[in-house]
Amino acid sequence: MKSEYVYVTIDALQLFCQQVFQACGLSEEDARIAADVLVAADARGIPSHGTARLPRYVNGLETGVVRPDAAVEVVMDTPMSLVVDAHGAMGAPVSARTMRQIIAKARDGGAAFGCVRDSTHFGIAGYYAMMALEADMLGIAMTNTAALGVPTFGRQVMFGTNPLAFAAPADEERAFVLDMATTVVPRGKIEVYDRLGKDLPPGWAVDRHGRTAKDTASLLDDMFHRVGGGILPLGGEGELFSGYKGYGLAVMVDILCAVLCGAPFGPDVADTATSSGRVSHFFGTIKIAAFRDPREFRRDMDRMLRDLRNTPPAEGAERVYFAGQKEFEAEAECRRSGIPLLEQTYAQFCDIATKYGLVPPRVLSGR
Amino acid sequence: MKSEYVYVTIDALQLFCQQVFQACGLSEEDARIAADVLVAADARGIPSHGTARLPRYVNGLETGVVRPDAAVEVVMDTPMSLVVDAHGAMGAPVSARTMRQIIAKARDGGAAFGCVRDSTHFGIAGYYAMMALEADMLGIAMTNTAALGVPTFGRQVMFGTNPLAFAAPADEERAFVLDMATTVVPRGKIEVYDRLGKDLPPGWAVDRHGRTAKDTASLLDDMFHRVGGGILPLGGEGELFSGYKGYGLAVMVDILCAVLCGAPFGPDVADTATSSGRVSHFFGTIKIAAFRDPREFRRDMDRMLRDLRNTPPAEGAERVYFAGQKEFEAEAECRRSGIPLLEQTYAQFCDIATKYGLVPPRVLSGR
Repeated sequence: MKSEYVYVTIDALQLFCQQVFQACGLSEEDARIAADVLVAADARGIPSHGTARLPRYVNGLETGVVRPDAAVEVVMDTPMSLVVDAHGAMGAPVSARTMRQIIAKARDGGAAFGCVRDSTHFGIAGYYAMMALEADMLGIAMTNTAALGVPTFGRQVMFGTNPLAFAAPADEERAFVLDMATTVVPRGKIEVYDRLGKDLPPGWAVDRHGRTAKDTASLLDDMFHRVGGGILPLGGEGELFSGYKGYGLAVMVDILCAVLCGAPFGPDVADTATSSGRVSHFFGTIKIAAFRDPREFRRDMDRMLRDLRNTPPAEGAERVYFAGQKEFEAEAECRRSGIPLLEQTYAQFCDIATKYGLVPPRVLSGR
Repeated sequence: MKSEYVYVTIDALQLFCQQVFQACGLSEEDARIAADVLVAADARGIPSHGTARLPRYVNGLETGVVRPDAAVEVVMDTPMSLVVDAHGAMGAPVSARTMRQIIAKARDGGAAFGCVRDSTHFGIAGYYAMMALEADMLGIAMTNTAALGVPTFGRQVMFGTNPLAFAAPADEERAFVLDMATTVVPRGKIEVYDRLGKDLPPGWAVDRHGRTAKDTASLLDDMFHRVGGGILPLGGEGELFSGYKGYGLAVMVDILCAVLCGAPFGPDVADTATSSGRVSHFFGTIKIAAFRDPREFRRDMDRMLRDLRNTPPAEGAERVYFAGQKEFEAEAECRRSGIPLLEQTYAQFCDIATKYGLVPPRVLSGR
């Protein structure tokens, strides 16, 4: 399977996605935020969470899993906490607004946390964590997801890929931005191996019996029908590489996102065939000035991050990166040369454009 | 090498350790807390962080790395934050007091966080996280450690084993207590393989060239002299099993413990030959009632934890555990039958007892 790319500008892609979301019933502001989050993922080199998911979002909006007109409700509101019931609203706008509100709360109180329940796929967690950076705060963002992960020594899915993001500002070095699923790999990686016809490496997944999974087709089918089998937590199979740590982190994310605000958790979270399902999120902000002069903090962060990227690489390796570095570099490249889109993704955009009477983003020539 | 055990009661072991710490110059209260944290590790089945470390603590106190008379200083104090300079004080008492203070702050404000800098080895992180449980709060505890961990694609140590702990209360199921190093294994595991003369499994460590380390002796020697090589982050070598995630988590812990309060971080943290070195900690508390009725939270936690431990095990596995479950079971067993101590550990206690004119804990008969 040959993958050819077309290139579009960040602005053109952003405008197109916003127009699609507006055509699906989102308000102008919600559509702009949802588009911004999707395009940010592409620009940061995380296409698995980028505009390639646009058809899934459109399906969600068309089937009612995502409700453009949801009356988002504030369930709890204190100086340091916020619990929001999204009632099925588009994940990105309600998430960005919640993060904005807890940043404002932390400006006064020093720290604040927010849960959003009954929400939908919010894109990359790192987007929200990074919103705290300009406010001289540490940012935290997490979400639970459809259950795809199997506990250590188990054979049935009991938690999602449950990503967590943590962002800390630096100065010359931009920022430290950790954004990671707590399973060893996301489902997308299994699907890539499936398309390539490759066996899975031992340590990625177990089959319906809880044994090392090699065959992608039966695994994906068994996972989809919840027969058994699933992706292993970070640390892999059994205890030799400490898989129980990734398992514990995944459950921690589920506790913060869902149990803390009374939302469904674990295997009660599921996707539909054509759209992501209802999920819950957790956001956090901690003001650096409550501990230390933020300028000094940023200066130390610069030194830490510079030391990390300058540490000598292993034989055969080119470079050592800190978390977020590759993404900042990808973003700079996309600003120069446009965002690469798979031709089949672009073809889907053209179908969506036709359906809603829109113009797809212009393809850049000369690459 | 045959390992024989002797058994002592929790109370006798606690009293002995307290007497030792008092003999080394700690106040009665500090000695009691330090003993409690050490014995809790043994009782919870984590002997690597238990009273087997008593000789190292005594060395630290005798050589001045740990200062029994340190004038602990509060550097920053707001309604949601606390920065404490321990000036080399014993880690456990200053940590327990900091956690107590931020629990009190969170009772009013809903959340609070504390950093302790220039501290010393604080034992198990989970001890402090669990202090929040009775107050109906989520508890967080982290520490940086001597640099032993190598970044993804690197070959020099740039961060510690940097454990993080997270505790959430349940009701009938006790609690969820995650307490994990962010490296794939702690140094102690490498030392165990060294004593057994076994090659390391690929994915645990790299040698001075950044290649997969097999030989324990040269690795430990190179690590000790900082020639190169070290333990890999959770997720192992390279990117296939997402080692950059554990690497990112380790750096996150270092940011929260050290950069946030202006303490040394990364390779600037080192142990001495006979004692742990100076380190920094981070503590956090979030009040559940700011989000939801804590009784409902505990009820949902019960359901989550019960479902996890009742999920069908993989073929060939006996049970699935949730984080903290094994430790609660070990503690119950130790309350019934005493704490197992390696004979050589007990012999060291006898030496310490002789030196300080104390009586070692009585050995239980009939086991």
